[in-house]
Amino acid sequence: MTEVVTVELGARSYPIVIGAGLLAEAGRRIAELRPGARCAIVTDDNVEAAHGAALRAGMTAAGVDHVTLTISPGEASKSFATYERVVGGILDARLERNDLVIAFGGGVVGDLAGFAAATVRRGMDFVQIPTSLLAQVDSSVGGKTGINAAQGKNLVGAFHQPVLVLADTDVLRTLPAREFRAGYAEIVKYGLIDRPDFFSWLERNRHEIFAFGPALVEAIATSCRAKAAIVAADETERGARALLNLGHTFAHALEGATGYDGARLVHGEAVAIGLVLAHEFANRLNLCDADAAGRVRDHLGAAGLPVAIADIPGPTPDADTLQRFIAQDKKVKRGRLTFILTKGVGKSYIADDIPPHEVLAFLRGKTAA
Amino acid sequence: MTEVVTVELGARSYPIVIGAGLLAEAGRRIAELRPGARCAIVTDDNVEAAHGAALRAGMTAAGVDHVTLTISPGEASKSFATYERVVGGILDARLERNDLVIAFGGGVVGDLAGFAAATVRRGMDFVQIPTSLLAQVDSSVGGKTGINAAQGKNLVGAFHQPVLVLADTDVLRTLPAREFRAGYAEIVKYGLIDRPDFFSWLERNRHEIFAFGPALVEAIATSCRAKAAIVAADETERGARALLNLGHTFAHALEGATGYDGARLVHGEAVAIGLVLAHEFANRLNLCDADAAGRVRDHLGAAGLPVAIADIPGPTPDADTLQRFIAQDKKVKRGRLTFILTKGVGKSYIADDIPPHEVLAFLRGKTAA
Repeated sequence: MTEVVTVELGARSYPIVIGAGLLAEAGRRIAELRPGARCAIVTDDNVEAAHGAALRAGMTAAGVDHVTLTISPGEASKSFATYERVVGGILDARLERNDLVIAFGGGVVGDLAGFAAATVRRGMDFVQIPTSLLAQVDSSVGGKTGINAAQGKNLVGAFHQPVLVLADTDVLRTLPAREFRAGYAEIVKYGLIDRPDFFSWLERNRHEIFAFGPALVEAIATSCRAKAAIVAADETERGARALLNLGHTFAHALEGATGYDGARLVHGEAVAIGLVLAHEFANRLNLCDADAAGRVRDHLGAAGLPVAIADIPGPTPDADTLQRFIAQDKKVKRGRLTFILTKGVGKSYIADDIPPHEVLAFLRGKTAA
Repeated sequence: MTEVVTVELGARSYPIVIGAGLLAEAGRRIAELRPGARCAIVTDDNVEAAHGAALRAGMTAAGVDHVTLTISPGEASKSFATYERVVGGILDARLERNDLVIAFGGGVVGDLAGFAAATVRRGMDFVQIPTSLLAQVDSSVGGKTGINAAQGKNLVGAFHQPVLVLADTDVLRTLPAREFRAGYAEIVKYGLIDRPDFFSWLERNRHEIFAFGPALVEAIATSCRAKAAIVAADETERGARALLNLGHTFAHALEGATGYDGARLVHGEAVAIGLVLAHEFANRLNLCDADAAGRVRDHLGAAGLPVAIADIPGPTPDADTLQRFIAQDKKVKRGRLTFILTKGVGKSYIADDIPPHEVLAFLRGKTAA
């Protein structure tokens, strides 16, 4: 089963193709999309080892001329130095503006290769072949590309839409179970933002999704469709797109307070805890009932995800530390905090008037301190 | 006298204000345009020494909070390293997406600061205050920003339009005469592309322009209007914008063959020779009459600009060397060369079918070799 989700952005619209076995077809699809174009495949060492040969075999069979540029796996590659190296590799391969950059990997590769594509010769087209569940449901929609600066993550980049996304669910079979679960947290997020029926569907179909059944393709497609609808309404993040940050203010604070130590907490896990906290905080503010928060916690917990600050291994951050990270966040305006809150499952909204003391009091109840 | 040229690009339209004394008014205009915005002024050491205090005094008087980031003058600053430093400076100043980057200098500052603005937080607005004649008539229109790579000039960048351009003609009084003349060559180019009446007007008003009379403002305004019309028709350089390269294929070859040695040949001088060569080459191909080529040569020569390869001081490049640089140029397709040629003054067009041997034969007649 293959599903196609079209991200509607006028002249920059593009299809996301989701299904099993797409890697082998990638060369043929690229040759049809852009006959004669040459490709620079940007990937990391892990993806290259697991799937590089399969992608290249299909490209060679389809007559697509290509070079491969590999980076080290991990967030540290979203640096100015690696950006310069990838840009140099694309230029050394003498790719022109009508050629293609292929971002073949997870979020780090997508962000970095997308930014290189956005800026080489002032903009080359690029194709995303996301290889993590998180990248398939999150990074492949929205056009955010970029690298990190000493001052913070994702502070340098561009909005640059791909011309095609190929999400091969077979590739996900080689993902560590923990990474798969982490991506699942973002799928759940889309139900919680504004799709209560999708959340109910996930409650019924979680087992099939984790067993790589047909529901996996449908879950990815619905997630992409949900994100695409929000992005189409707000391409450059001036308004409604903030809804995508449901659970993320808490998540970023947890990641910051644990030093972005992926051994303790990966992003999707932080999002899982953040989603539960957002609903519990909304419940504390009498915005949503305790039943909604309970459903969220139960569902994410049943999927094997952490759902409370105490679930993070090692010494857990205290409330004041978390509050400090939240206050540093860019979503602070005139002494009030902006949170994505909710009136129940699938009823989230942007609240820009949250008093910091309410957050601190809530966090004190959720932490050891 | 102040003239305003509006660059019409839909939601990205912006005004270019041209006149004397604009530097002192910049702070007030910026405060009106974007109340409360903070500014990062990016400039080079020379411009800083000559005009930095005047710009900052006006900004302080208008209550505009600002920091200044200086770079070394010259093309070498269009590097990844300087880009990273400028981006870091903007982030260290904690500028947000609603704040402004001010590109205060010539083409190098405009390209570099514009690229930083295009990419910090995935896009900040920027204001250009061009301080060279070349930057006022060329870089301030079109939205091209970028840096150089080891593989070539301007190979990394973005299309990013400013929100305001302030072209202060008083600032040009401190320009070396040679830089002023070099900028004038680009003004002449606009007449030669498609404005024969403007070229005739320049023939009559050249003395007043060089004497900083009212004709200078008019010449800059007409140049900006001419470039804006071409850019509006082709914002991302897929077609008609190539007309702006009139004279530039020869110019780039001359710059490359003399090692980009600004002591021997600055860009505008190369353009002057390139404009003459383009008309002479068109005449050789029986596209335009000898009289047109003569008018171009006479006018540029009278302005004190070089008009022949032999006018370049030092050992002049031979025809084969120039031909090699032309062939390396990105405008080569299927063994044929793309040139901007002309059927007479103000009648230029894109010719994409020029046989290389015709160019070589022409160049042999124009060089010692």
